[in-house]
Amino acid sequence: MPPNRSTSLLTDMYELTMLQAALRDGTAHRQCAFEVFSRRLPNERRYGVVAGTARVLRAVQDFIFTEEQLRHLSFLDERTLDYLRDYRFTGQIDGYREGDLYFPYSPILTVRGTFAECVILETVILSIMNADSAIASAAARMVTAADGRPIIEMGSRRTHEYAAVTASRAAYLAGFTATSNLEASHRYGIPASGTAAHAWTLLHVNDDGTPNEAAAFQSQIESLGVDTTLLVDTYDITKGVETAIEVAGTGLGGVRIDSGDLGALTRRVRKQLDGLGAHNTKIVVSSDLDEFAIAGLRGDPVDVYGVGTSVVTGSGAPTAAMVYKLVEVDGHSVAKRSRGKAMTGCAKQAVRTHRSTGVAVEEIVHPFGSPTPDVGRLSAVSLTVPLVRDGVTVEGLPTLKESRAYLAQQLLTLPWEGLALSRDEPAISTRFVGFPA
Amino acid sequence: MPPNRSTSLLTDMYELTMLQAALRDGTAHRQCAFEVFSRRLPNERRYGVVAGTARVLRAVQDFIFTEEQLRHLSFLDERTLDYLRDYRFTGQIDGYREGDLYFPYSPILTVRGTFAECVILETVILSIMNADSAIASAAARMVTAADGRPIIEMGSRRTHEYAAVTASRAAYLAGFTATSNLEASHRYGIPASGTAAHAWTLLHVNDDGTPNEAAAFQSQIESLGVDTTLLVDTYDITKGVETAIEVAGTGLGGVRIDSGDLGALTRRVRKQLDGLGAHNTKIVVSSDLDEFAIAGLRGDPVDVYGVGTSVVTGSGAPTAAMVYKLVEVDGHSVAKRSRGKAMTGCAKQAVRTHRSTGVAVEEIVHPFGSPTPDVGRLSAVSLTVPLVRDGVTVEGLPTLKESRAYLAQQLLTLPWEGLALSRDEPAISTRFVGFPA
Repeated sequence: MPPNRSTSLLTDMYELTMLQAALRDGTAHRQCAFEVFSRRLPNERRYGVVAGTARVLRAVQDFIFTEEQLRHLSFLDERTLDYLRDYRFTGQIDGYREGDLYFPYSPILTVRGTFAECVILETVILSIMNADSAIASAAARMVTAADGRPIIEMGSRRTHEYAAVTASRAAYLAGFTATSNLEASHRYGIPASGTAAHAWTLLHVNDDGTPNEAAAFQSQIESLGVDTTLLVDTYDITKGVETAIEVAGTGLGGVRIDSGDLGALTRRVRKQLDGLGAHNTKIVVSSDLDEFAIAGLRGDPVDVYGVGTSVVTGSGAPTAAMVYKLVEVDGHSVAKRSRGKAMTGCAKQAVRTHRSTGVAVEEIVHPFGSPTPDVGRLSAVSLTVPLVRDGVTVEGLPTLKESRAYLAQQLLTLPWEGLALSRDEPAISTRFVGFPA
Repeated sequence: MPPNRSTSLLTDMYELTMLQAALRDGTAHRQCAFEVFSRRLPNERRYGVVAGTARVLRAVQDFIFTEEQLRHLSFLDERTLDYLRDYRFTGQIDGYREGDLYFPYSPILTVRGTFAECVILETVILSIMNADSAIASAAARMVTAADGRPIIEMGSRRTHEYAAVTASRAAYLAGFTATSNLEASHRYGIPASGTAAHAWTLLHVNDDGTPNEAAAFQSQIESLGVDTTLLVDTYDITKGVETAIEVAGTGLGGVRIDSGDLGALTRRVRKQLDGLGAHNTKIVVSSDLDEFAIAGLRGDPVDVYGVGTSVVTGSGAPTAAMVYKLVEVDGHSVAKRSRGKAMTGCAKQAVRTHRSTGVAVEEIVHPFGSPTPDVGRLSAVSLTVPLVRDGVTVEGLPTLKESRAYLAQQLLTLPWEGLALSRDEPAISTRFVGFPA
């Protein structure tokens, strides 16, 4: 993740011992295709969001072995170490656009090259895709639930310090409007945002130790301007709102409520603010919001949502359950037959069909390189695009902002019930066409 | 996380805007105490495991602002930027040992110093403690469930690529025996381990594309020795085991089963192995194991567990819900009164009492610096130890291995029902003594 740092040890040991055995028996150079897909959507969600693709492409470029790293790999033989010393991925990657939707068995990413060069990328590719897609998939449901109102991502403290940075990115991809995380803002250009903590109010005690909420508010306004958002629930909310407007005047930017029954409280606070003449002061709510709580507040006077824990932990689904499976060896389709884990061999690509109204109908998966299946009077969009050619990331891939806009468009194509928060089948189905039985 | 890299932007924006306002109004230099604690144990677990402490202390040392980072903080005024340019934490940190148990309201970490120097550490301290403790807490339950049998952590692909590295560390702290993750092995000295993937078996097709499981097994043994573990469930398990012993002989190290009804399968495979004379060939199981599945296999002939998704995602509790709260300002106790989030002010320390049998009775929390409460005929162990003095990490803190051994000891002190996997109250209660009402 940090610039100029090799990603090569973010890898399971067995990738490298398989490599060693393959170099020894000659299978290392067989032409292979590996596929990233998911057998199911977690928690019976209706769709998933592909995220992390741009980070994967960067990690593949950074997958090189330094001499210091090679010294740690003393369990490998010389031939394998020599291979790794010169390692650069030189194969092809095709896949779904970042920000596209996916469903069970969508061929999200296809990695082609020799067995050796593809197999060792498994762990880092899955780590990134599973983490980022889990968060974007949860975040997109929250954005739908917020129904146009802005959501600020503020969950850094609830997840690994670097996972926090990419969680911000995934949430922004999914339509969140800002992040509290400074590294994410710095690295990905996401708007940064913040209010104040309860500690800020608590810090402002009088000499005798009694609370002085007004002093905290006054100081925050002097430093950040009247457009700031004051946290009003440290002691008593009604008193807090009264003090806030006394100190700031009716031009106060916003008040934040971080506890209690947010529906009842926001209605009461809106009335109070309006009664004080602060009609434009916004109400920001936080406090363990998830997509269901957000939806539950849709009828209440909430202007901005702040979401932490639930988004950075994928709201009950902290990983996307994607796998990286070998599907083709020297032109032969391969597939395991383990119970409950059976799969279809062959490298694949996919199209999504739409009615003339733009509503998506289904995904059709067909063998990689085969012509687009006949879809009758429907229109078909190719979901599989080139990402890496001969080891080089293709030029002109979308920026994060472009992928964000793309996802927003894609969500509009789902049948309306596909945006429901309830558990159900995938919003559209996936059909396999043209594969050997 | 990477060496020589500043942790200072792994921070929420509001920490720095509060700093700016505090520098302006003079409160920045008030002497404060912040406390890390948790109001509850997730999912009604019986205990939590403190993890991440050593990483926190490193992150505090690395919390410095480079000129490049300061340039990104253009939303701050010059005085604040000057403060950050020279920032080094110079205060005191006391807290629970890494690997100790904790319960609701245990004062896990207390950070003392000026408001300015303490407040800006909030985000990164919580990120680390919440992520690592969530994983160690889940992992410890799995270790108990495994009842002495080894568990290999193999979840890297299911979580953020850097969270994977520290997840391995937390799982090892909790008693896991090895990790698949090479960076974790490299960085923390954790034994690395691995078998082979289904891709390895699938790679070995004959020229006509038909499977050749024997060739895959043969090659793995030639490369890694007969002590290796062969994955036998790619096609048919019974045939796979037969082929494995045919190729390897009865000295084969192990077979791995990664799908199906593991109880029934391990019994059948054990019988088959014994029938073939492979009495010492171990059975390794994986496939979405969590603490309940591990416990469910306790009566079955499992020799080694491989655990992935569930441990790196905290088995249903991906974050530990720890918070960082201001509890003291210039000697005055402070506390917010928000509904459902009320707390006790004052800096704190704690002891755990034990009967003469060694069984833990309760935690007693008392004001920081006050004498140990009278515990009658019980013995009391101080849980709060110095970690940082005047900005410098104290010497002689335990190594990861020592903390691992310490946790194993602590688990033995719990009342026996405290190790149950079922939902219930905390294993011991926490009592506050000596605080103003």
